[in-house]
Amino acid sequence: MKKVKQITFAARPTGLPDASIFRIDEVPLPDPKEGELQLKGMFYSVDPYMRGRMNEGESYVPPFQVNNALEGGVVAEVTASRDPKFQPGDVVHGPYLPWRTEMTVPASAVQKVDASLAPPSYYLGVLGMTGLTAYIGLMDIGKPKAGETVVVSGAAGAVGSVVGQIAKHLGCRAVGIAGSEEKVKLLTEYFGFDAAINYNEPGLDDRLSTSCPNGVDIYFDNVGGEVSDAVMRQLNFFARVPLCGQISYYNATEVPTGPRWQGFMVTRSILMQGFIIRNYASRFREGIEFLAPLVKAGKIKSEETVAEGFEKLPEALLGLFSGKNKGKMIVKA
Amino acid sequence: MKKVKQITFAARPTGLPDASIFRIDEVPLPDPKEGELQLKGMFYSVDPYMRGRMNEGESYVPPFQVNNALEGGVVAEVTASRDPKFQPGDVVHGPYLPWRTEMTVPASAVQKVDASLAPPSYYLGVLGMTGLTAYIGLMDIGKPKAGETVVVSGAAGAVGSVVGQIAKHLGCRAVGIAGSEEKVKLLTEYFGFDAAINYNEPGLDDRLSTSCPNGVDIYFDNVGGEVSDAVMRQLNFFARVPLCGQISYYNATEVPTGPRWQGFMVTRSILMQGFIIRNYASRFREGIEFLAPLVKAGKIKSEETVAEGFEKLPEALLGLFSGKNKGKMIVKA
Repeated sequence: MKKVKQITFAARPTGLPDASIFRIDEVPLPDPKEGELQLKGMFYSVDPYMRGRMNEGESYVPPFQVNNALEGGVVAEVTASRDPKFQPGDVVHGPYLPWRTEMTVPASAVQKVDASLAPPSYYLGVLGMTGLTAYIGLMDIGKPKAGETVVVSGAAGAVGSVVGQIAKHLGCRAVGIAGSEEKVKLLTEYFGFDAAINYNEPGLDDRLSTSCPNGVDIYFDNVGGEVSDAVMRQLNFFARVPLCGQISYYNATEVPTGPRWQGFMVTRSILMQGFIIRNYASRFREGIEFLAPLVKAGKIKSEETVAEGFEKLPEALLGLFSGKNKGKMIVKA
Repeated sequence: MKKVKQITFAARPTGLPDASIFRIDEVPLPDPKEGELQLKGMFYSVDPYMRGRMNEGESYVPPFQVNNALEGGVVAEVTASRDPKFQPGDVVHGPYLPWRTEMTVPASAVQKVDASLAPPSYYLGVLGMTGLTAYIGLMDIGKPKAGETVVVSGAAGAVGSVVGQIAKHLGCRAVGIAGSEEKVKLLTEYFGFDAAINYNEPGLDDRLSTSCPNGVDIYFDNVGGEVSDAVMRQLNFFARVPLCGQISYYNATEVPTGPRWQGFMVTRSILMQGFIIRNYASRFREGIEFLAPLVKAGKIKSEETVAEGFEKLPEALLGLFSGKNKGKMIVKA
């Protein structure tokens, strides 16, 4: 049987993961059975939420199994099909496919992508889970109204950059927070944010209040920690805080401590809500119909950081935790 | 001009207030002008939220002014009327009346109470702001479904006791947390909670998980701090947390610290929302229509702690912060 390369999850990390948790194996590629497809990976997605799947125990997605393949979003070409709806040459996307150079999967694990609408890799980003995460979190929890101020942390990331651009499209003031001068420039000059702040420079509180003269109505939080504390202090009455991620302490080994915001949330009637995009599958079509025309018209730009070569997957994933990516981090096979 | 007694706000407290912030003065009672009423106070409400009004600066209710009367909910008898809608002898209720033995106020500051439905003092509690707070917070933010588990902190208080009884009426499991064996007994034996926990005994986590075998779907939080941390650890996926009050640190002089729950809120898709009953005035009629028949039928019981004598108001208010009240704390003139 043909052998293909696989990125194997070698060991559960404690704290910040390093290269020792990955192993490259050769595994057999079974022939497709009835209802199955054989795929050749084109683009692989690495995402911050994968850190949670490296821990044992209950979470919203089952944990990765040690000695099995890691898995994530993949855009792939169909190389053999035993399902009448797919032909060799079709380009498909699956949100939970194994990290193998080629793979045999049930046809139900993938959907065809419309390459006429956008480059195929966009289905791992702005037209995939990250774009939909931005759309659902901002619209359903943030409920933006024209003229309001939307602050986004992790703003140069795959989700954050789309949040800011949707906010601008809806007539809001968009203010992004990111971790370098280069990212801050990208936010205002490329993504069109009204203002952007480098949280690694001193005076975050002052710069936030200068950038948000009317306070903050929506805080779309990808980061958590002290950056979030600074934004919380500026929240207006009736502010909404979609909690999308907390990457600043994904690698923490104990629950971190910080200010208890609950009293302030009472005083200001603030709403805070965690959400997981998997639970909004019935809304994906609506989200893609909202996003696709804006992407096609250039109103929502997608920034990708692309690493070349299947074997770069571990490095690309680890790079997320040191802020190496601008926009969506992708590995091209 | 006739003189009446007034409880004056003598000085802003730092931290836990004591008797030195109050002063009893004699002030003139003006004759009512066109559109005004003269009232004689019958029952005065003391409420935890008043602590916030003792601080300077912006909050959801304007701060008390030093050397002016304190104010709060009062049930009073009309002694003179220059408004055709009111007659001497009518019993009225106003949420923000001055703490005076008699007072002259605009007729628009009060509403008549229906004494056939419930004793007049109930309009300071279960049919007033505290009952409506329980109703709105539980229904609008908690969104209870039959079979779910509702945990209430400050459960023996004026709001908490009503939350638990509404939850029971809707077919939920109601679990109360309070600070003494006496209150715990009151919760299960009088108010009909399914279980109640004394947070001053050791093993809060264990006793919570025993009392909530299916986890916690709604946590109605009046208290905050470490009691809330224990409940947060038991929250189910998609749990809702109405934040009504945080009395455990109303007297704190710095923002207290505690676990950062945001990461957990993402993982479990948890919603947390602060609210202020003043912002729901358009729903008060609906709330009273829901509560009044249940009160009349004895399905929602009201517990009052009544102090006798107008001059007991300062002591009654201070008593809230040491847990002296069971149910609604009221002063009878």
